[in-house]
Amino acid sequence: MNLGYKGGRREQMEKEIIRIGLAGFGTVGTGLARIILENQDWIKRRVGKKLLISRVLVRDLNKVRTFIPGPEARFTDNPDDLLSDPDIDIIVELIGGIEVPYTIITKALKQGKSVVTANKALLALKGNELFELAAQNKAGLYYEASVAGGVPIVQTLKESLAGNKIKSITGILNGTANFILSEMTLKGLDFEDALARAQEKGYAEADPTLDIEGLDAAHKLTILIRLAHGQDYPFDSLPIEGISKVQAIDISLAGEFGYTLKLIARVKEKSGYLQAGVFPVLLPEDHILAKVDGPFNSILLYGNAVGPIMLYGQGAGELPTGSAVLADIMALARDNSEPNNTGFLEPCLPRARILDPELTVYEHYFRFTVLDRPGVLSALSGVMGEYNISIAQAVQKTNPAGGSVPVVFLTHKAQLKDVYAALKEINSFSFVTAPTVHYRILT
Amino acid sequence: MNLGYKGGRREQMEKEIIRIGLAGFGTVGTGLARIILENQDWIKRRVGKKLLISRVLVRDLNKVRTFIPGPEARFTDNPDDLLSDPDIDIIVELIGGIEVPYTIITKALKQGKSVVTANKALLALKGNELFELAAQNKAGLYYEASVAGGVPIVQTLKESLAGNKIKSITGILNGTANFILSEMTLKGLDFEDALARAQEKGYAEADPTLDIEGLDAAHKLTILIRLAHGQDYPFDSLPIEGISKVQAIDISLAGEFGYTLKLIARVKEKSGYLQAGVFPVLLPEDHILAKVDGPFNSILLYGNAVGPIMLYGQGAGELPTGSAVLADIMALARDNSEPNNTGFLEPCLPRARILDPELTVYEHYFRFTVLDRPGVLSALSGVMGEYNISIAQAVQKTNPAGGSVPVVFLTHKAQLKDVYAALKEINSFSFVTAPTVHYRILT
Repeated sequence: MNLGYKGGRREQMEKEIIRIGLAGFGTVGTGLARIILENQDWIKRRVGKKLLISRVLVRDLNKVRTFIPGPEARFTDNPDDLLSDPDIDIIVELIGGIEVPYTIITKALKQGKSVVTANKALLALKGNELFELAAQNKAGLYYEASVAGGVPIVQTLKESLAGNKIKSITGILNGTANFILSEMTLKGLDFEDALARAQEKGYAEADPTLDIEGLDAAHKLTILIRLAHGQDYPFDSLPIEGISKVQAIDISLAGEFGYTLKLIARVKEKSGYLQAGVFPVLLPEDHILAKVDGPFNSILLYGNAVGPIMLYGQGAGELPTGSAVLADIMALARDNSEPNNTGFLEPCLPRARILDPELTVYEHYFRFTVLDRPGVLSALSGVMGEYNISIAQAVQKTNPAGGSVPVVFLTHKAQLKDVYAALKEINSFSFVTAPTVHYRILT
Repeated sequence: MNLGYKGGRREQMEKEIIRIGLAGFGTVGTGLARIILENQDWIKRRVGKKLLISRVLVRDLNKVRTFIPGPEARFTDNPDDLLSDPDIDIIVELIGGIEVPYTIITKALKQGKSVVTANKALLALKGNELFELAAQNKAGLYYEASVAGGVPIVQTLKESLAGNKIKSITGILNGTANFILSEMTLKGLDFEDALARAQEKGYAEADPTLDIEGLDAAHKLTILIRLAHGQDYPFDSLPIEGISKVQAIDISLAGEFGYTLKLIARVKEKSGYLQAGVFPVLLPEDHILAKVDGPFNSILLYGNAVGPIMLYGQGAGELPTGSAVLADIMALARDNSEPNNTGFLEPCLPRARILDPELTVYEHYFRFTVLDRPGVLSALSGVMGEYNISIAQAVQKTNPAGGSVPVVFLTHKAQLKDVYAALKEINSFSFVTAPTVHYRILT
C-alpha cells in the first residue's frame, strides 16, 4: 500500500534530521521557529528526529532581523531556492495570499515534497485541485493551522471523529470579529471604536475586511465542510454576512432578552443536503458558545455517535498557530504511511449537495425603526402573520427625543425565505424610517 | 523503519475487510457494534475497508440478546476462541476489571495483534509493562476511549499537541461525580440523594466507589500524565480525595462567595517535577470548567506553545465511548506505519519526578464548626497567622437553634503543608465541635 511512493518521501522520512523550507517569516513563521528551537529535545523524544529550518523565504532580504531560526538557516527571496534544494524534506507555507503560495505549493507537490500550510483562503478556493495534485504525487498536504489556530480541529475531524457522521458544526472561527463583538458587548463600544481597539492590540489588520466581513470565517468553514462531510462546497455558494453593520443598540437590546451576539460559521446536514453560512446570530446567554470571549475560537459539533463535542483555544497568534504547524510537521516526520490529507480515500471530493439557505428555519430577532403612530404595531404584526411568522415577544421603546422609536420582535421558528419577504414589505412602509435590523437566533 | 514488522500486521492491514474480535458486549461493546453497522459505508469511505465484528466474547452464552452485531458475528465464552482465530486482525477489549483483560491483552500483543481498549484501570496500573510488550511485538495498543469517553484527548496529546511542553492539565474526568455535584449545586440535594438520582439515571453503578472516591478519575489522570509528560506516575503515589464527604452546606456557602465545587484531576509541571492529584476544589463561577454540568467531561490544558486549550464532551455512554473505540480501530485499519502507542519513542516511560503535593500552593476555603463564644475568631485566626496563612475573607453565620455555628475563612495563597498543620491544631481546640471542612480554591 505504501510501497509505491514517488519522490522518495519514505527515504526522506527515515533521515535523522528533517530539513524544513520555510516560506514566510512573519508572525507564525517566527513562532514556529521559536517553538522548534525551544522544544527541540522534546520533539526528538516524540519523533526521534531533529527538525531543522534550513532555508527561509522572505520578501525583503535587507530587513534587519532580531531573531534567526537557528545557525543553519539561510535566507532567500527566491522561491526556487527552496524548491530546488534537494535536502529540504518539507515545505512550510506561511506567506498568505493566493498566487505566490499557489505556485510554491503546486511546485513542491509535483516534486513529491510534502507541504504544511496555514493558508485557509487558498485551500477554500483551490482545495480539490491541490489535494488531487498531492495524491497524484503521494505527498502530504497538511493544514491543521488553517482553522482555529492551535485548536486541533482538523486532526479531530480527520481522525478522532472519522467514524461519526457529523450532523452540525457551529464555530466561532474568527478571533478578530469575536474580540470586536466582545468589546461591544462587555464595554458598550460602537463597532468603529471596538475595531480601533482590535487594531491597537494587533488583533485586526490595517485592512480588516477579511475578518469583519466574515470571509476568513467562511474560508475556514469551507475547509471544515470538506473534513466533516467529504464534500466540496464552492466558496462562491456560501452565504456570508459580516459584522461591520452591527450596532451597539442591538447588542444591548438582545442582552435585555438574554441573548449574546456572535459571528458564527455553521453547517448543518439535513437528509444528505448541507445548509451552510457565516452570519451574526443571537445565542442564549447560557449557550456554550456565548461565553467564548475575546480573541478565542471555539467549535461545537454534533456527531451521530459522539454527540456534542466542543473544542476551545486561541485561534491566532505566533505560538498557538505555530503549534498547529508543528503538529503537522511532526506527523509527517514520524509517519511513513500514505498521508491522510482529506480524511477520505478520494482526494477530489464531490460537489456538495446544497439546500437553499433561505429554506432554513430559525427563531428571529427584528428591530424596526418606526414613527410613533397609531396602527404601526398592528401593521407590522399583520405582515408577520401574512408570512406565517409567529411573534413570541414584542417590545416598543420610547424615544424621549421624539421622532422614530425602536420596536423589537422576537419570533418563533420561521423560514428565512418568509423573513426576507416580510422584511421587504415592511421596509417599504412609509412609517418605517430606517432599514429593519434582523438577526437569526440559534437555540 | 516499518519494514521489520513482526506478526504480519502490515499484511493484515492490507486486507479489504478488517475482522474484529470483541471482548465484552456490555454498553460500550453494543454501542461500538451499532455505530459500525450504522456508519458502515461512511467508514469505508474514510479507510477503504469494511469493519466486521467476527467474534464476540461474552460471559453468559445463554443470555437472550436483542441486538446482534452483524450476521457473521459468532459468540463465545472462551477468550481463546478470539485469540486463536487467525482471521482476527484487532482485539477490542471492553470487559473492564484487571485480571481477565490483562490476560487477553498480553496474549494478543504477544501474537503481534493490535489491541484497542477502554480499560483505564489496567493502563493506569500496568501501563509500562503493556506498552513495552506492544513495542516488542510491533503491535498497536490504542486507548482513546479510556479517558473522557468520546472526547479526543488521547489523540490530541499524542499527536496534535505533541510539540508542546504541557504545563498543566485540569480535568473533570468523571461524569458520575460531576453529575452528583451538579445535582447538589443546582437542586440543593444532599450527597446521598444526588447519588440515588445518579443511580436511577444509570450514571452511577450499584457500587459507586470507583467514581465517587476519585479512583476512576485518578486512573485517567495517570494515563494523561503519561501522554503529556512522558512519565510513569505510580498510581499508588497519587493523592486521591473523592466527593463522598461533600456536604450541601459547603456547596451553598461557596456559592455565596461566587465559587462552584467540582471534582478535578490535575497535574502541574514545575521545574521538571510533577504535582498531581484528584480532589474536590472550588472554582470561580466564571472559570471555564465551572460551567461543565451533569455527566459531561472537560479538560483544560496549557501548552508552552498553544496556550490554553479546552476539550468538552460526553465522558461516558454507549455511543460516545464507542465513537472513541472506533477512532482507534480506524487508525489501525488505515495506518501501516509503526503504531504510536505512548506518543514517545520509548515504550517504557521513566518514573515521574514527583514534587511533594503538600508543597503545592493554593488559595483555601475553611469551614469551622465552633461554639459561639468570645475569643473563638481570634483563636482561629491566630493559628492561621502562626502558619503564614493570610485570611482574605471571613464570615460567621448565626445558628437560630443555638449551639455550634459555622465560621468560613477564604485565604490567600498558602502551602498545603501549612494548611494541614493549622487544621490539626485547630481541630484539637475544645470549642471546635466538628472536624473542619477544607477545600482548595483553583483560580
